Amino acid sequence: MNTAAHPRVISITTDFGRGDFGVSEMIGVMYSIAGERIRIAELTIEVPPHNILDGAVIMARHAPFFPPGSIHVAVVDPGVGTHRRPIAALLGEQFFVGPDNGLFTLMYQYAVKNGHPVQVVHTSNPRYWNHEVSNIFHGRDIFAPVAAHLACGISLEELGAPVLDPVLLDLPEPQQIKGGWQGMITRIDHFGNLESNIDGAVLQGREAVEVQVGGAVIRGLVKTFGEARPGDLVAMIDSSGVIGVSVVNGSATQKLGVRQGDMFTVKVSG
Amino acid sequence: MNTAAHPRVISITTDFGRGDFGVSEMIGVMYSIAGERIRIAELTIEVPPHNILDGAVIMARHAPFFPPGSIHVAVVDPGVGTHRRPIAALLGEQFFVGPDNGLFTLMYQYAVKNGHPVQVVHTSNPRYWNHEVSNIFHGRDIFAPVAAHLACGISLEELGAPVLDPVLLDLPEPQQIKGGWQGMITRIDHFGNLESNIDGAVLQGREAVEVQVGGAVIRGLVKTFGEARPGDLVAMIDSSGVIGVSVVNGSATQKLGVRQGDMFTVKVSG
Amino acid sequence: MNTAAHPRVISITTDFGRGDFGVSEMIGVMYSIAGERIRIAELTIEVPPHNILDGAVIMARHAPFFPPGSIHVAVVDPGVGTHRRPIAALLGEQFFVGPDNGLFTLMYQYAVKNGHPVQVVHTSNPRYWNHEVSNIFHGRDIFAPVAAHLACGISLEELGAPVLDPVLLDLPEPQQIKGGWQGMITRIDHFGNLESNIDGAVLQGREAVEVQVGGAVIRGLVKTFGEARPGDLVAMIDSSGVIGVSVVNGSATQKLGVRQGDMFTVKVSG
Repeated sequence: MNTAAHPRVISITTDFGRGDFGVSEMIGVMYSIAGERIRIAELTIEVPPHNILDGAVIMARHAPFFPPGSIHVAVVDPGVGTHRRPIAALLGEQFFVGPDNGLFTLMYQYAVKNGHPVQVVHTSNPRYWNHEVSNIFHGRDIFAPVAAHLACGISLEELGAPVLDPVLLDLPEPQQIKGGWQGMITRIDHFGNLESNIDGAVLQGREAVEVQVGGAVIRGLVKTFGEARPGDLVAMIDSSGVIGVSVVNGSATQKLGVRQGDMFTVKVSG
Repeated sequence: MNTAAHPRVISITTDFGRGDFGVSEMIGVMYSIAGERIRIAELTIEVPPHNILDGAVIMARHAPFFPPGSIHVAVVDPGVGTHRRPIAALLGEQFFVGPDNGLFTLMYQYAVKNGHPVQVVHTSNPRYWNHEVSNIFHGRDIFAPVAAHLACGISLEELGAPVLDPVLLDLPEPQQIKGGWQGMITRIDHFGNLESNIDGAVLQGREAVEVQVGGAVIRGLVKTFGEARPGDLVAMIDSSGVIGVSVVNGSATQKLGVRQGDMFTVKVSG
Repeated sequence: MNTAAHPRVISITTDFGRGDFGVSEMIGVMYSIAGERIRIAELTIEVPPHNILDGAVIMARHAPFFPPGSIHVAVVDPGVGTHRRPIAALLGEQFFVGPDNGLFTLMYQYAVKNGHPVQVVHTSNPRYWNHEVSNIFHGRDIFAPVAAHLACGISLEELGAPVLDPVLLDLPEPQQIKGGWQGMITRIDHFGNLESNIDGAVLQGREAVEVQVGGAVIRGLVKTFGEARPGDLVAMIDSSGVIGVSVVNGSATQKLGVRQGDMFTVKVSG
């Protein structure tokens, strides 16, 4: 499946925050192994600490924009040092490396649903790890070297045994209800905007819409923030194509007192 | 004009802030199109939100240090989804891609003033956009792919029709007054240091100088912070070559209560 | 000593913080000189301002993970514009460029102790600087171009005269005391975790251990945070292999009121 030409792009997504040097160590490890074969994109390193669902949503948002053969390393890993498995996966045309804690749920479900390639392995072969492995930093000592070896052409089979039951987050699909769809808030960004799991495509071009979230009812969708006034609560199809709710120049999560996982309903007329 | 050899350097400057994954998506788009032809430098991603003047000053500061043929993408874009045009420009020996809202004002004026190449186009040819274009994220769907196509050798002419009236910020040049120069505060950095639009070259080696800003009068310039004591208000020629005002280990904007755009006067003796 | 093949990896570590564009300028300078010969890893840019010891510890932590021939540029430089020398060094198999203020102390001592190559020069040859050198930003005007020239194969000898007395931080080695080791807190990370200079190897597999720091006595080491409860004060061997102290989901520096440099004692039974 390693059909992409060099250089291979490796993305890194973590919850380490900016002052940390853990990402530096991961970058060093990758260059030591894969050298000129890779390009490293240091992506979001401020996933909220230990928020696996946020990490999963972010991975699912940016991965589709990367070229085939890209390798996405994600380290949101509260279970490091416990029995959770380190895994690597081919999902569609891209690779994912990280802890088996549900970080890749959305990409996995998308690949399964669309009949794309799905192959997951337990990266248990220490030949592709660092020589010494810390109990508390598998990002540097397992995931980074495994990703670099994948970039060099090592196959998933060589990394370890198949995993047929990867951990998946319990993310219910939105349900069709009378007059619309009921879903949830999947992510709240650092501005306080709410992102749901209801795709804008459910509207099928119909314009009249009502969004219900946190006790508020928002009538209609705006196309840009410019259509409303500062402080207004608005609903729109966001840049990821899903229906979201924002306060113009403010925080929807503060205004509504809602949290990740709360109910989010879209009513469609006609 | 595409004389630079590969790889081409693409810089990204945005106001997205660190928690956002928009830059990740832009990086993915660029690698998907231009692959090994590019090096991506993820530069300042914490331009104060919607502060076009700050973005313009930052672009003008770092661009001159990049190699000819570099491509600078800037996304400080409060007008996304409205009628503002997406543009690409050759200014001097480098390319600029972003919204037509004044972000490139300083580089444009510098090129015009010095008789360097100036060519601006409306990037209206959808062939060089992403297949789907979000109303609210042209950074990913228009600017990133346009920059990547420029790196692959697409000419400005192919991107769209010439723009003869790019939007320019209203940035008055400093005026020569009796005994000195009167300008403005162009930028306040995150430490609270004030940066003016008065070039240190106006001193022409003369030493006696007085800076007036926010009601304060500062006599003389220091060469380094080490010459003054913590809490002192000092004036100096900053690393960009312009005259600035700082509080040693403190915030000049807080101490003086001044804002971007306020008057900044330099008196030169003799 | 320039035996590493291209591309060469250049890392940048600074205390500039995120809103600053100084790193952008350094990246531009490096690409202008070394172009396709380099890969730039923008590492920790949030070293606490002017904290040379933190910078030194961070350099010593991540450098060993990089490939031979890598070039590490560090700019924590409160003495810029004074008489402090700009230096470049080969320490072991890697290069270091920055101010002569102790930033490279740990790498230097490690190389000397292990009989690895040690060569330090005063980078006084302006041929390898930018044409104009700011009094307050040698990172851009001396260190960045020097690093890029090293990547292009310029030798240390060409950069300037040997330095036989580089500035070294006064970092006492941990002392063996009755029943254990006495060291210091070398770094406090942004979560408030304490990192000591006592290597986990001193335990030599013995399990019973007591850590004394800030008046607290912590019995035993945990292997992962998961073994303790939120709010617990725990000691562990951290991912750098040294003994550290943390509060689970909290801040050890706040709980104990300790600071960088404070005493840190490890008692070993048997």
